[in-house]
Amino acid sequence: MLKAIPTVRFSRGRLRIIDQTLLPGRYEVAALGDLDAVCDAIARLRVRGAPAIGVAGAYGLLVAVEEKWGHTGSPMFDSGIDDAGDGSAPKLDMPGAIEADELVATLNRASERIVATRPTAVNLGWAVSRMSAVWRDERDAHAICRRLIAEADAILREDLEMGRAMTTHGASLLSDGDRVLTHCNTGALATGGIGTALGAVFAASASGAKVSVFADETRPLLQGARLTAWECRERGIPVTLLVDGAAASLLSSGDVSCVMVGADRVARNGDTANKVGTLGLALAARRFGVPFYVVAPSSSVDVLSRDGAAIPVEHRAAREVTHMGAEAFAPGDVGAYNPAFDVTPADLITAIVTEKGVHRPPFRFGEGA
Amino acid sequence: MLKAIPTVRFSRGRLRIIDQTLLPGRYEVAALGDLDAVCDAIARLRVRGAPAIGVAGAYGLLVAVEEKWGHTGSPMFDSGIDDAGDGSAPKLDMPGAIEADELVATLNRASERIVATRPTAVNLGWAVSRMSAVWRDERDAHAICRRLIAEADAILREDLEMGRAMTTHGASLLSDGDRVLTHCNTGALATGGIGTALGAVFAASASGAKVSVFADETRPLLQGARLTAWECRERGIPVTLLVDGAAASLLSSGDVSCVMVGADRVARNGDTANKVGTLGLALAARRFGVPFYVVAPSSSVDVLSRDGAAIPVEHRAAREVTHMGAEAFAPGDVGAYNPAFDVTPADLITAIVTEKGVHRPPFRFGEGA
Repeated sequence: MLKAIPTVRFSRGRLRIIDQTLLPGRYEVAALGDLDAVCDAIARLRVRGAPAIGVAGAYGLLVAVEEKWGHTGSPMFDSGIDDAGDGSAPKLDMPGAIEADELVATLNRASERIVATRPTAVNLGWAVSRMSAVWRDERDAHAICRRLIAEADAILREDLEMGRAMTTHGASLLSDGDRVLTHCNTGALATGGIGTALGAVFAASASGAKVSVFADETRPLLQGARLTAWECRERGIPVTLLVDGAAASLLSSGDVSCVMVGADRVARNGDTANKVGTLGLALAARRFGVPFYVVAPSSSVDVLSRDGAAIPVEHRAAREVTHMGAEAFAPGDVGAYNPAFDVTPADLITAIVTEKGVHRPPFRFGEGA
Repeated sequence: MLKAIPTVRFSRGRLRIIDQTLLPGRYEVAALGDLDAVCDAIARLRVRGAPAIGVAGAYGLLVAVEEKWGHTGSPMFDSGIDDAGDGSAPKLDMPGAIEADELVATLNRASERIVATRPTAVNLGWAVSRMSAVWRDERDAHAICRRLIAEADAILREDLEMGRAMTTHGASLLSDGDRVLTHCNTGALATGGIGTALGAVFAASASGAKVSVFADETRPLLQGARLTAWECRERGIPVTLLVDGAAASLLSSGDVSCVMVGADRVARNGDTANKVGTLGLALAARRFGVPFYVVAPSSSVDVLSRDGAAIPVEHRAAREVTHMGAEAFAPGDVGAYNPAFDVTPADLITAIVTEKGVHRPPFRFGEGA
């Protein structure tokens, strides 16, 4: 069975994340004790990946409550899930006086801020909305808090369970000797700790298949070069890096068995928003007859989006394109077109894998499937 | 009329190039006085672009002769072409004793070394082979040298003339308000000083059309971010940068009027080798109904290559992908797939523009066209 990585955990009142902006140079866990730090970490991609930011958003609400009412040294909330993803009951240690109205107001404000950090991944909205059902139903502060920590733990636990199921289904599409081209990072670091597309490769390897990975570097933030390459090496999977522009050439060479990518949001008809660069991969895979698979939990399926046109795409700062760290390589103040995602039309997708199984076209999510 | 930039010139025994590895931070002309320096400059892309390295290769042969027989302070060869590209007669000041056999041996050795620096661009082989016709025909050292400097100047002069004709034909495909997506650098810096695809945009602008450029950054060496953005700003053309992976997204948006790229080698059937990333652009342009134009001099057409399969593709060091300068962003010693070029099949190309005009499919180069 695949071992989890503690990408996102909650412990003693703080959100604990592996800081992904420091990898692969440095492995460091950041403990975030206030809502500003949580929102900043999501916006700056210290924690990233649609499933992972869903989990971070859920626990982020607890951080907001802890920030306001928690007592130093003896936190209100403690998760029951450890680094390995194993679970026990969460803990709650309420201070004397919390007004339910004030608590709900704090939670509503925190929800708005968290959801606004990144617009495309539906998991963030999905997780926060799941949490908010708690304070819609409850009028008692203690009961709300008790159910909030339980619900956040449930979201993480389900993420890990979905990861195991999804990667098993994904691995069923792979054979011994397969060479999988992937984009961005969809391993343990993109989720609560198991992974989506890259997790499927790891699951295939764990079950004895010799598989290898071609990793698009994934400009501008180089999640492929930094994170996918790092995870592959941690798990002993052979990995070859390429610039995003070389993917069509590689696909034309016949050396790729299939493309596997994750998703930030899947529309009802199967149109899929994922890290910018995915659409180009799908077009090249189609041209050269290479299967193109999307692997994502059902929490990334948005049945409210009829098709790709309904998915909002986040545009990010030009500086991500014009600079690397402090160094500018473009001439001063050149503007940039910098969408974080693109939308791959369903007709280019061979199959969409969720924890429920392998879905083949035509895709009709949300119709009792 | 478009003003030339002195990308490659020859003056007083030395090859003078604008060092393109330093732009846009620093504009510096390097004067190369020996063959090692010339070969290193081509291999390291201090001078790059298929037409430009053709010119550099031709003058490089003179550098090899100068290195062996030239007298310090008073060089043998001097070009008649100035920075602006205007010409007069070249100069030759022969030392007393050069054996014709020894001269030819030196030239043959230098030719082999120059052609081996970069395998894909046919212009390098084309220019060196044109020069070598001189010493195949002549038996007198003085006559060989006199004709060599005249031939190298002719290659540069024709490059500038072809540039003016080609960019005029290319500009005829553009209209007021057009937004042109391009890849790598195909401006003055890629040629003797006028340009190919980007030159066509500049020519359209010079004739009064309001045009703008979307520039792929072009990993791994960022010629788009560094050189295309710089040239556009020097010429006052609005330019927006994007990562290569965002091009398909941009093409799907409807905001691009056409794609214009250069070529390193065009096969007889129109299959076109160009900077890696071009194939993906062509596939996305086709999917979203955007015209895809190649602009290149006829010296980039290789009638000996029947189709793209006959074109050798240069593979470069993994370090270009894993590092930026001294900084590694990938984990240690990860391997990379790093072809410098890809091949776009002719069926994806709307037109190929040379100095002779606008060629539409089916392409049949070398058949009296």
